[in-house]
Parts: sequence; C-alpha cells; structure tokens
Amino acid sequence: MINLENIIERLREIMEDEDDSQEQLREELNGYHVADLADIFQELKSEERLKCFKLLDVEKAADLMEYLPPQIQVELLSDIDEEMASKILTRLPHDAAADVLGDMEEDESETYLDRLPHKFSEEVRELLTYNEDTAGGIMNPVVLTVTSDMSVQDVLNHIRIKAEQDNMELYYVYVTDKQNHLLGVVSLRKLLTSPINQKVEDIMISDIVRLHVDDYSDYIIDEFMKYQYNALPVVDLYNRLKGMITWDDVHDLFEEETTEEIYQSSGISTEMVDEDEILSGSIVNALRARTPWLFITLLGEFVAVNVANHFDHTLNALPIIAIFMPLLAGLGGNIGTQSITLMVRGLSTGQVTLSSAVHHIVREAFIGMLIGGFFGILVTLVTWGWQHNIELGIVVGIAMIINMTMATIIGTFTPFALKSLNVDPAVASGPVIATTIDVIGLAVYFSLVSIFLVKVM
Amino acid sequence: MINLENIIERLREIMEDEDDSQEQLREELNGYHVADLADIFQELKSEERLKCFKLLDVEKAADLMEYLPPQIQVELLSDIDEEMASKILTRLPHDAAADVLGDMEEDESETYLDRLPHKFSEEVRELLTYNEDTAGGIMNPVVLTVTSDMSVQDVLNHIRIKAEQDNMELYYVYVTDKQNHLLGVVSLRKLLTSPINQKVEDIMISDIVRLHVDDYSDYIIDEFMKYQYNALPVVDLYNRLKGMITWDDVHDLFEEETTEEIYQSSGISTEMVDEDEILSGSIVNALRARTPWLFITLLGEFVAVNVANHFDHTLNALPIIAIFMPLLAGLGGNIGTQSITLMVRGLSTGQVTLSSAVHHIVREAFIGMLIGGFFGILVTLVTWGWQHNIELGIVVGIAMIINMTMATIIGTFTPFALKSLNVDPAVASGPVIATTIDVIGLAVYFSLVSIFLVKVM
Repeated sequence: MINLENIIERLREIMEDEDDSQEQLREELNGYHVADLADIFQELKSEERLKCFKLLDVEKAADLMEYLPPQIQVELLSDIDEEMASKILTRLPHDAAADVLGDMEEDESETYLDRLPHKFSEEVRELLTYNEDTAGGIMNPVVLTVTSDMSVQDVLNHIRIKAEQDNMELYYVYVTDKQNHLLGVVSLRKLLTSPINQKVEDIMISDIVRLHVDDYSDYIIDEFMKYQYNALPVVDLYNRLKGMITWDDVHDLFEEETTEEIYQSSGISTEMVDEDEILSGSIVNALRARTPWLFITLLGEFVAVNVANHFDHTLNALPIIAIFMPLLAGLGGNIGTQSITLMVRGLSTGQVTLSSAVHHIVREAFIGMLIGGFFGILVTLVTWGWQHNIELGIVVGIAMIINMTMATIIGTFTPFALKSLNVDPAVASGPVIATTIDVIGLAVYFSLVSIFLVKVM
Repeated sequence: MINLENIIERLREIMEDEDDSQEQLREELNGYHVADLADIFQELKSEERLKCFKLLDVEKAADLMEYLPPQIQVELLSDIDEEMASKILTRLPHDAAADVLGDMEEDESETYLDRLPHKFSEEVRELLTYNEDTAGGIMNPVVLTVTSDMSVQDVLNHIRIKAEQDNMELYYVYVTDKQNHLLGVVSLRKLLTSPINQKVEDIMISDIVRLHVDDYSDYIIDEFMKYQYNALPVVDLYNRLKGMITWDDVHDLFEEETTEEIYQSSGISTEMVDEDEILSGSIVNALRARTPWLFITLLGEFVAVNVANHFDHTLNALPIIAIFMPLLAGLGGNIGTQSITLMVRGLSTGQVTLSSAVHHIVREAFIGMLIGGFFGILVTLVTWGWQHNIELGIVVGIAMIINMTMATIIGTFTPFALKSLNVDPAVASGPVIATTIDVIGLAVYFSLVSIFLVKVM
C-alpha cells in the first residue's frame, strides 16, 4: 500500500527545488512500479506529468503507458517530441498501440503511423479496421506459433529467439500449419515437463476453445469466465490464427461490463452513450443517457396520477388517507427492487435459470408476504395509536401486505419474462417496475379505502 | 457455443436405453470440455448427475470438480464410494480440496482428511485454519521455489521433475533462501529467453508485489487489478513464502464482490448473511438480509407521513394536490438513484475521487436542474390542460424542479460524505437517500401549496 498524497507532496518539493533536481527526480520516479507510477501520474497536474514523463527512460515510459487511461496516454504522446513518441509506440504491444492511436484524431494517428516501422504500422493498421468491441479489436496479433513436426527442443530454441525479439506475451504456444490454420495448443507447463525430443503433435491439445475475430466483448468475457484460461486464440472465418486475447485485456472488459450492468439497473442507458462518457464527458451525453428512462417514469407516473384522480371522491371524503401514500409506495418500491436485483444478478451469473422461474416467484411472494405481514401489523398499530382510528389502521396495514407481496411478484416475474423474450433483463427493469408498483399499489390502496372506509364513515 | 438442452436430451435418451448404454454414455461424456460438462451437470437431476459422474475417469472427475459449485461438489463426493472420493480429492489443487472440505460438515471432512495421504492432508488442514476470505484461505500452498544460486538450466531441470509430480500451477518461479524467505521472482518467459548458464540471481526481480496471509479479499482484488499479474505470492509476517494466488481464484472473488456491491446498492445487506445464501438458502437468511434496510425505510417513511400530516389543513382545503405526490416522489427518487449509482460506482473504480467532490456535486446539480426544468414545464402544461388550473400546474412544476435538483445534490453529496467518514458508500446509500428525498420533497411541495394555493383560493 503506498501513500499517494505523501509521494506527490515529495515529488512537488523536488520539482520546485531548482538546483540539480532533475537527477533526483529521475531517481525517485524510477524507484516505483509502473502501476504505482500510473496512480501517481493521474493525480499530478498536466505540466507536472509531462515533466516527470520526459525523465523516464523509453522502456519504463512504454510500460507505464499501458496502465494509464486513454486521455492521459494521448495527452502525453502529443506533448513530447515525435521521435520519443514513436519510440514509445513501437515498444508497446500491438493492441495497446492500436488503442492509443484509435483514441487520437485521425490525422494525428496517421502522422504517427507513417513514422513507425513498416511491419509494425501495417499490423496496427489492420487492428484498427476491426470494431473495438470485438475480438479483432481487442486481440494482440503477435503470437508465438510453431509447427506440429517440431520437437520440444526446437520449440524451446524458437522461443528463445522469437519471444525476446518481439516483446511477446507468452502463455501458450499455438500450433499452426503453413497456411496459418490453428491446429492445436501447448501450454508452457506441458512444454517444460515433456521430454525434449518429443514431437509437438504428441503433446498438443487439438480440441481448442477459440474466439472469432467478430465475437463481441460480452461473449469473450463469458468464454474466459467459463474456461478460466489465461489466454484464448482468435481466428478468422477460415480458422486462420489472427491473434490472441489475454486475461488482462478481459479484466478491462469485465470492469466495463459490470459498470454497464450497474448503470442500467438504475435507469442510466448505455445504449447510445459510451459508459465512460456519462460521468465526466459533455453534459449533452449525460442528458442523453439519463433522460430516456426518466421520461418513461414520467409517463408511468402520469398513469399513477390518473389512478389517484379516479378516486378523487374518496380523497375529498377523507383527505387524511393521502398521508400514507409515500409510506406504501416507498416500501413497495424497495422490496420490489430487492427482488429485481436478486433475479437480474442471478440470471447474469447463472445462479438463476429460466427453468427455476416458478420456484423463485413463489419463494419471493412468500418472503413478500412475511415481511409485508410483519410491517402491516406494525403500521396498523402505529396508525391506531397515533390517529386513534383502528379502521384506518387496518386498511393501511392490509394495503401494506398486498403492496409488498405484489411488489415481490412483479419484481421477480418481469426479469424472467424479459429474459424469455431474449431482452436483457438488466435494461429497463428498475424504473419500469417501480412505476408499475406505484400504479397498482395506489389502485389497491384507494380501492380498499373506498370499500371499507368512505362507506362506513 | 454449445446447445445445453439438446445435449441433455441426448444424454437422457442414452441413459434410458437399457442395453450397453454405459459405454456409449462414457464416450459421450468424455468428449466434452470439463467447463461444458460442469454446465451440463448443473442442469441434470441429482441421480442422473451421480450416474454420469461415476463413469468419468478420476483425472477428468477431479478437473470437473473445480468448475462445479460447492453444493454439487459436496453432494457428488458424499454419494460416490469413499475410495474414489479420496482419489479425486488428492488430485485437486490444495486450495480447491480445502474449499470442498471446508463446505462439508466437520465430522465428514475429518473422515476424508484421515484417509488422504499424510502430507497432503496436513497442508490442507493448515489451509483450513485461515479465514476463507483472506489470502491464507484462498492461496494454493504448492509453489515452485528455487534458490538464487541455481542456473537457468538447473531451474529448467527442477521444473521438469517437480511441476509434473506435484500437479503444480506454473506462472512464475519464486526464489527463496533456505528458511523459505521470499527473495525474488522469475517469469517463465524470462527463464525461456535467458542463456541457460545464467544465474537466477542475475535475472530475478527482487522488488516483488506480495500479499500477506491475512489480507482480505477486497485488497487482493485491488492488487490484482492494479498490477495485472497472473499470480501473486503470499507470505507470512516474516516474509516466508506460504503460497500463491492465481487469476482464476481472483475471478471468483471478483464476481462475489460485484454481487455484494449490486446487492448493497438495492438495500440487501451482506453483512450478516453470506451473499450466496440470500437467493436460495433458508428463508430465515433471506429475511435477515432483506429486512434491516426495509425497516429503516419504514422509519424514514413514518417521518414522511408525519410531514404530510403536518400539512393536514392544506390537504383538507385542497385534496386534489395529493394525486401529484407519487409523480414527484417517483421522479425525485429515480434521478437521485442515478446520481448515487454514478458516484458509488465511480468511487469504487477510482474514476471519481474525493478531491473532485465539489466538481461532481455542481455538475449533478446542474443536470438535475436542466432535466427538472424540462420535466417541470411539461408537468405544468399537462396539469394546466387537464385540470384547467394554471396555478396548480405552476406549483407542481416548480416542486418538480426543486425536487429533482435537490435529489441529485443529495444523491451526489451522500456517497462522498460516507466515503470521507471511511464508511463504504455502497452500503445504505440507496434506501436512506430515497427516503430522505421523499421527506424533503414532500415538505417542499406542501409548503409551496400552502403558500401559493391554499391562500389564494
């Protein structure tokens, strides 16, 4: 655990000190792990960041790049001189270089691409042609391949030359034929524990889990989660090996996916606006992401207003009943949200399946009835003691039981219904259901009041 | 992508077929990847599962174990004969074996531990002494270690013998002294690309990120996320190497952590009940997890009821105003929830920091005012056209603007306040803030009504 504030204070002191602070700063900066440096850089001001970045040697600067968020990557590369920038770019893995260049304006990235070594820039250009949310846009195209007739010793020699020279990530060795078709895979572990004169074809696994260049990120995450490999190969339509995706790429995807799931559950739409532009991008993006479901809530609540208006004679006869409306709506909404959350999350992790829908609906209804019953009795007693009106207390209490039970049923049923229609249950569930519960809850409450109270009084 | 339903149908047909179905079933089952088999097994009925499991060979059965959820692991092990069960257990990595045994009743797990090879059961017993949410309880104690005076060739020979024999996970080789103190680490890649007579001390990295046996899972996740290694070593108080944690362990932790975050945001408490027992465990656990925040909502809504009751003369004078209560509460609640979600998630991923609190509060207030203004005008017009009462329309519209702006401010401010008090902002934020918004929103609305409407009419 590092203490960021202290470190930054010390760095600033060194920077302010005029005499030979350069050397001291360089030494200080080189002492940190690049992941820690990335945290430090994010806290520094723009000009401090640049000053520090220029003092790093190229190797460390390239390493650091991979840990920084896109906007800082682009900012730093644009501010240093072009030669240094090109050097750093060529030292990045291809996928990381493509990510940085993809985040720049097109004419700017073209300038860099023209200055980079031809082979490197060609490969990066190809990566940039893929949709950035697909395996093609995420993969690293530099993969160590061997042929099936090589011996373990041949492979080890091959690694010794290739892996060093191409700055290559190394988890598995992929076996291909002359046309680059993917035939099998050998893990480093298998390689290191097999006799050195054994042939690759005898130790390779040929039933390989593979990704296709056009697979989308949610599918990629599912495959990694399911098979728990450190890397998966990416092939094209004809099973030609195009690259590989590693765990650390998936970690970023996974964090994005989780953010989207959490956003959607509270009615923030990630369909039209990229999820990382909602919190800090332009206000227009924030409005586009947030208004749609609020607007649907508005329409739903107009229905609720209409339902209430339908009972205006009841309200006129006994205005006091209005004061219990927030109590009923609030608790119905809360317990309904709990049910939705449990089902949506369960469906997403696989802990809940469509075939268990009935079981869950019954279980949730039972829980709603228990909690609703307990709260209903409490509310009845409190209302009785406070308003000295036992009939009113009983009606509010019964409305509470019905409301909470109904909320759990709707909250459980809807995600299953959406899922069986192949609609992502995370989208929309929250706000729509809360409004539905409001509408039905009001109708139930006012009906009870007009049947039992307004008549008898 | 496999089609589970079709596969299960085919398996059931084979099982129903009396004659020599055994061999056919065995062949069919062995054709699947264990991760796919795990999905299949989860869909099968208990007795079908057992029948299939018995047909797998020990190696495959042990592999499969690691992909199955705890309750199925325990169920299968208890139902097969004890000798087979012991064989499977000894083939599991130590941490996986400890997980299974930890999920059994104590006398049952003791029976197994007594039957297992002495060294293995001793190591598993030690794992069971650690808290299962700490690095000690999660790590695998079997790690490949070398000494710093060995040459690359020595290490390769060492791996050839040890890794095969101990069924060892292999990502890095750890360098220790004779008392097992952790001195450094060498990646397999470095090992494979270094000259074979180079000494380990010349290629090892000695500034190592390490975990401590007592580190909790949220810290472990943070370290993996930050440094993006495939494995991290675990040491005790005296820097003695006790084991290592790999990416696939962290993936499970990460999924649990995300579930907790999502649960807490909708008022499901994971403090007292394990998060995987809420959805399907006993009803009592579900009630313990769900009632606390509902109860706090109940108390909060009683305050709201009291506020409304305080304005009973206003309500009596103009009962129609009650029908707009759900509209105001619903939209205030929704936009407030959006703000909370953005801040809580941002604080959790690091996209938002305490130092940017003021910026975010101002930004959110501005967004609340814009959307509130737009919706306020809409509501004014609709109310005017519908109730033919422009004064009422204007009051409801103004209440809408104030309500939505205030909801974004409270929803943004509270997570920062909790965070600065070192309270996890994910806990409690949701229900408490929704209730607060209800209370203040009602007070604002009724005040406006009593100032502008009840007087003038």
